[in-house]
Amino acid sequence: MTRINENFIKLPGSYLFSDIAKRVAKYSEENPDKKLIKMGIGDVTRPLAPAVTAAMKKAVDEMGSAETFRGYGPDYGYDFLLEAIAENDYAARGIKIDKSEIFLSDGAKSDCANIGDIFSVDNSVAVCDPVYPVYVDTNAMAGRAGDYDEKLGWTKLVYMPCTAENGFIPALPEKTPDIIYLCYPNNPTGTTATKGQLQVWVDYAKKNGSVILFDSAYEAFISTPGVPHSIFEIPGAEECAIEFRSFSKTAGFTGTRCAYTVIPNALVRGGVKLNSLWARRQSTKFNGVSYVTQRGAEAIYTDQGKKEIRETIAYYLENARIIREGLAKAGLKVYGGVDAPYIWAASPKGMPSWDFFDMLLKKAGVVTTPGAGFGPSGEGYIRLTAFSTAEATAEAVERIGSIL
Amino acid sequence: MTRINENFIKLPGSYLFSDIAKRVAKYSEENPDKKLIKMGIGDVTRPLAPAVTAAMKKAVDEMGSAETFRGYGPDYGYDFLLEAIAENDYAARGIKIDKSEIFLSDGAKSDCANIGDIFSVDNSVAVCDPVYPVYVDTNAMAGRAGDYDEKLGWTKLVYMPCTAENGFIPALPEKTPDIIYLCYPNNPTGTTATKGQLQVWVDYAKKNGSVILFDSAYEAFISTPGVPHSIFEIPGAEECAIEFRSFSKTAGFTGTRCAYTVIPNALVRGGVKLNSLWARRQSTKFNGVSYVTQRGAEAIYTDQGKKEIRETIAYYLENARIIREGLAKAGLKVYGGVDAPYIWAASPKGMPSWDFFDMLLKKAGVVTTPGAGFGPSGEGYIRLTAFSTAEATAEAVERIGSIL
Repeated sequence: MTRINENFIKLPGSYLFSDIAKRVAKYSEENPDKKLIKMGIGDVTRPLAPAVTAAMKKAVDEMGSAETFRGYGPDYGYDFLLEAIAENDYAARGIKIDKSEIFLSDGAKSDCANIGDIFSVDNSVAVCDPVYPVYVDTNAMAGRAGDYDEKLGWTKLVYMPCTAENGFIPALPEKTPDIIYLCYPNNPTGTTATKGQLQVWVDYAKKNGSVILFDSAYEAFISTPGVPHSIFEIPGAEECAIEFRSFSKTAGFTGTRCAYTVIPNALVRGGVKLNSLWARRQSTKFNGVSYVTQRGAEAIYTDQGKKEIRETIAYYLENARIIREGLAKAGLKVYGGVDAPYIWAASPKGMPSWDFFDMLLKKAGVVTTPGAGFGPSGEGYIRLTAFSTAEATAEAVERIGSIL
Repeated sequence: MTRINENFIKLPGSYLFSDIAKRVAKYSEENPDKKLIKMGIGDVTRPLAPAVTAAMKKAVDEMGSAETFRGYGPDYGYDFLLEAIAENDYAARGIKIDKSEIFLSDGAKSDCANIGDIFSVDNSVAVCDPVYPVYVDTNAMAGRAGDYDEKLGWTKLVYMPCTAENGFIPALPEKTPDIIYLCYPNNPTGTTATKGQLQVWVDYAKKNGSVILFDSAYEAFISTPGVPHSIFEIPGAEECAIEFRSFSKTAGFTGTRCAYTVIPNALVRGGVKLNSLWARRQSTKFNGVSYVTQRGAEAIYTDQGKKEIRETIAYYLENARIIREGLAKAGLKVYGGVDAPYIWAASPKGMPSWDFFDMLLKKAGVVTTPGAGFGPSGEGYIRLTAFSTAEATAEAVERIGSIL
């Protein structure tokens, strides 16, 4: 008799964003006349850049001709894209990353989730609280999280509270974890870490032989000089960190699917290069990214592409400013939204976050994400995204202001 | 200290096709004047159909306009494609599959590999021998295969020999496995199974509560009436089977990336629907397939698309005929190649398959795949693919004939 993976049964309910979608659908069905503004899920709305679509159409033409058709590409990505990444995202910032250290994929969510394959199930795992649910759920599925307790969360996970009090930078945990997830600019709080703050973590991981899984999916939104874009700006990180990057938010690729993971050759555990383990994992369980998508991603690194991408990022950051300032004016305490597309706002009078979510949905017609969905320390907050249109963003802020 | 997944260390050497690629690269470097004909890896060469490229370019245009832009799609695929699959690949053959039972992905390799996530590590696994290496390697990575012994293979795997003697249909194993991989039309042998032969397996799996993982990536090549295209043509399969399908070979999508997995709602183990487990796995660890790719796949199901796809399949099947008949004329015993793009040929005089591979590489300049790479029972065979151009195929067959 086939046995299922019992860890799946331990997972509480469904994925956060499915829950929200259901609540929103129910409200919309009951109130078909109400025009909702969606600032919940972190999905972009601006179209692909003209440089990107031109490159993709050219690639489709190549695929339609016998002379230029391409079948299976290299499992880890075409050199033309790996080289553009190494040059623009790393060398240009003074970071030495070889193309053999970069692995292309269909998404940072896939990579953050699948990276667990190369690690023993026995490792202890630390996550920030609040946190992107994928880190938690995938470790729960693999059996690294223990059992779920409604009050305490997962029994085996090390939760690291990130609160206004500690500036959303976790303290070093009492019990040293083997695997540490960090995400800056942060999802969900929209806050950043300084080089000094990250250096503390790199030194800690190196000393203890831990591995930092660093999610920098939002680095393109950094507008403040000096804020690090990559963990590999921190000396020593190449011996203890893996970095996840995505084109989803940088270039509007949420529906186009392209991301990459960087594993330096210097990162060795148990005498084995983690780069080799991931290479083996990917060549066995993955077959590369669509050629058309890869040509689109390459176009982001052209002069024209860079210019177009910058304009889109600036558009979203202006939305973020409007939300940040508008909510502050309405009396809410707000965080993030300067170097990130997310604004983290405290509920008025300590209201529970699902209550504040419901209030904004039903009274203002604005969809947010309740902070509690990201972990216990997210209670009392909501997350708003800057990915709507400028018009919708302005209207949402006005509507929220009018009911507070 | 972070511990790695030690199962990775047990894997012998690298992935079969990487080994071949290295051997070929070495030969080419030493013999730059020799023109090689590649009939090893199962990669297509014909361009995408005009209906597909037209749909993809239209989709790129949509992605370039704010009004029609699409961000994250549904994790399991857009309804337009799921409905086209349910209608054309199932309902049209009298099989009732609901769109909620279909999960789109970036590749059948990914799905065959990732499906293990929903099963306990304690399940016993049976694979055909010879077999597509991904089934074996992914179970080894997960810890289901035990240890590797050079003579016996993986200690915990149940190997089911598929030989000319049993018509490449495995006998029911002595010890009942929990998970059974079957692939028809078969990779690597190119042979098929009848409905009666599959019925035996479905009855066996139902009786024992096992699950059949059925890979039908090559069903589009079936030209013989009555040969089943889907495991779900077999009564009872909906209670014991999962099916993997791909657009890679059907429509030349190896570089475009799209496939799907079917898990009927009636398939329950341990009181849980496997459909729900896979839904949770995919929504947590995957973020959907590129919208542009999905529109391309949808176009395959239009009248024009179907016609164009059929022409390409006919082109490859004609290559298969030329290989099959040519090698037989040259005195080799050949199998497959009628309802599949693969021809399975016995080495002359029982020569070991890596020796025959080397002989064909060095004397005929033809790249094949040594049967031993697919498992112990593949020893003494090579696999040839029908995916080259008609001209190259004819030349390869002539070259092989001239040296035998």
